[in-house]
Amino acid sequence: MSIRDDLPSIQGVAYLNTGTNGPMPRPAAEAMAAEVDRAVAQPRIGMPAYEHFFGLRDRTRAALARTVGAPEEQLALTSSTTHGIGIVLSGLDWQPGDEILTTTEEHQGLRSPLYVLRKRFGVEVIEAPADEIAEHVTESTRMIAVSHVLWTTGRELDLAALAEAAHGAGALLLVDGAQSVGAIAVNAPASGADFYAFSGQKWLLGPQGTGGLWVAPDAVNGLWPAQSGYLNLQEGQVGRFREDAGRVDGGTLDTSVLAGITAAIEWVEAQACGRAGWTEQTARNAEVARARLRQVAGLSLAEHGKERAPLIAFTIESEPDSVSLAERLGKQGILTRFIPGTPWLRVSIGAWTTEDEVEQLAQALS
Amino acid sequence: MSIRDDLPSIQGVAYLNTGTNGPMPRPAAEAMAAEVDRAVAQPRIGMPAYEHFFGLRDRTRAALARTVGAPEEQLALTSSTTHGIGIVLSGLDWQPGDEILTTTEEHQGLRSPLYVLRKRFGVEVIEAPADEIAEHVTESTRMIAVSHVLWTTGRELDLAALAEAAHGAGALLLVDGAQSVGAIAVNAPASGADFYAFSGQKWLLGPQGTGGLWVAPDAVNGLWPAQSGYLNLQEGQVGRFREDAGRVDGGTLDTSVLAGITAAIEWVEAQACGRAGWTEQTARNAEVARARLRQVAGLSLAEHGKERAPLIAFTIESEPDSVSLAERLGKQGILTRFIPGTPWLRVSIGAWTTEDEVEQLAQALS
Repeated sequence: MSIRDDLPSIQGVAYLNTGTNGPMPRPAAEAMAAEVDRAVAQPRIGMPAYEHFFGLRDRTRAALARTVGAPEEQLALTSSTTHGIGIVLSGLDWQPGDEILTTTEEHQGLRSPLYVLRKRFGVEVIEAPADEIAEHVTESTRMIAVSHVLWTTGRELDLAALAEAAHGAGALLLVDGAQSVGAIAVNAPASGADFYAFSGQKWLLGPQGTGGLWVAPDAVNGLWPAQSGYLNLQEGQVGRFREDAGRVDGGTLDTSVLAGITAAIEWVEAQACGRAGWTEQTARNAEVARARLRQVAGLSLAEHGKERAPLIAFTIESEPDSVSLAERLGKQGILTRFIPGTPWLRVSIGAWTTEDEVEQLAQALS
Repeated sequence: MSIRDDLPSIQGVAYLNTGTNGPMPRPAAEAMAAEVDRAVAQPRIGMPAYEHFFGLRDRTRAALARTVGAPEEQLALTSSTTHGIGIVLSGLDWQPGDEILTTTEEHQGLRSPLYVLRKRFGVEVIEAPADEIAEHVTESTRMIAVSHVLWTTGRELDLAALAEAAHGAGALLLVDGAQSVGAIAVNAPASGADFYAFSGQKWLLGPQGTGGLWVAPDAVNGLWPAQSGYLNLQEGQVGRFREDAGRVDGGTLDTSVLAGITAAIEWVEAQACGRAGWTEQTARNAEVARARLRQVAGLSLAEHGKERAPLIAFTIESEPDSVSLAERLGKQGILTRFIPGTPWLRVSIGAWTTEDEVEQLAQALS
């Protein structure tokens, strides 16, 4: 049985936009349905219900932690990458003149809260090309905040170098992992990051409204739980925050959603080659797709040397308007993404992507 | 057909803790299951998927707004009451010496973020008995932050008087509506509040991880979207926040969860007597329960004059330990709640509660 059989939503289309939302595997939907059945049939109160709820949270935390190679106590539950970034940026104290370095190619989930810091606290937000970030570090630099893999072009940034630049200046490194976790091999604790935020509904194939925030052990106590409640406390005692990353958990998630993201993660892990083999297969498929697209006349790939990430961006001479190009392809069942404010059309390649689908795309572009 | 037929989880138990999580109606579960089916079977990308997602958010926003008598543009989507409170408290600028008045009987969802404001910004948090709040207003008072209905005893606070006290001092009124919305008739715009946060999974009978935050039109521009992202923006443009309460929407919710809370709200509205009749029936049932419990020897009700709210708290001479009392009742299928740090056992009466269930409780206490 092929993995494709467990991914009904990829049937009949070329599913090339996991960078927005991934195809959900059947076992994730079954786990969600089972939780919905339970929630309607059994009381959601009383000890068995509480134990079930907290047990599911623990299991989800552990599953999300595995996807970034971290122990579960370093993982906060969130509803998205944006949410994780917001928890970090709203949980640190900022002074006028503090500087944050970021690239010119970040998503609104990072750019919008940075805008708020600028307006609200007088933080200087310096946008530079990804190559030049380290050159802008000064003694006022408090943070480098960047994507691991740029959503615009799929370029992978050198986190080790950025961590060295940040830490050398006493600054923190916040990573937007929306396009990395589940797409490439990620080890957050070894990455040099202090905070690593990621999503459940993209490359991890889970339901929407799920995600994780990895917090370095040294960083957790420096983070105010700006939006806290019962779930962040030890034994419900106000003032006694959890000592692990759960102190900044982003609030309640329904049991169905918890079960869904957990099952999606476990489904990949249960493949013969596991999570590591999954990302290797993804990278191989992306390399095949890149090679084929390079043969399309008039097509220019966003080339950047680091080509592990399975996001491929390009322009094509004959159709420079990526919005209308995405629309035309969509009508042919080829689901891609135009990147607003850039010339790029972006395709996301999965472990499930076939050469036929790539050929279908190449033909449609020829 | 009785409403009880649509509430499978109340069968075989006395479901007396809607104050934690309500019984979910069958149509809510069906709506969730349909969304799960859709999410696994169809691409969650492309125009039809986006339109479906944003259409569901609009419909959920409108449904939640109706439950507090507000237009939908005044309603932010959240994942809980706690989340809504966090959005408000983290979205305002605080100075050392600012004073916030609150009662001595608030939930951790309010007390914990107030603790953070105290530690982080030097805000003075003054806890007073509910009757005495207004007496503590000074020229340093920036906010009164209280429950509409206290989770401890079901006491309903006089929001109009508190609003007058707050606004007379140039302060804001933040209301924790966790135990009011869906339990009693609520009209947030007429209440005098500036912010009114509430939950979806309690008295509104929806899935966990849902809720709403009503924001007064005058207050929305004064609130920083401390944790913002794409969904808070107009046309995705950083710096151009939505002009309605969506500017502080609390992030992504799965389509299944959106559909579930919407269907739960619509199910109540579709009853012959509608939402208004539902809360009236709830109040009548609570009055019957209070009358019966008053007859139990040695039982002392938390009496407080305002008895619309369907939460009833009591102590009983023969079993003063509410924790073990709740446990004993739970073993008999009578699901109640002990209130930590207080002597109270609390029961939540619903529109579906029968006199037989109340009798079962009374007998078990006799």
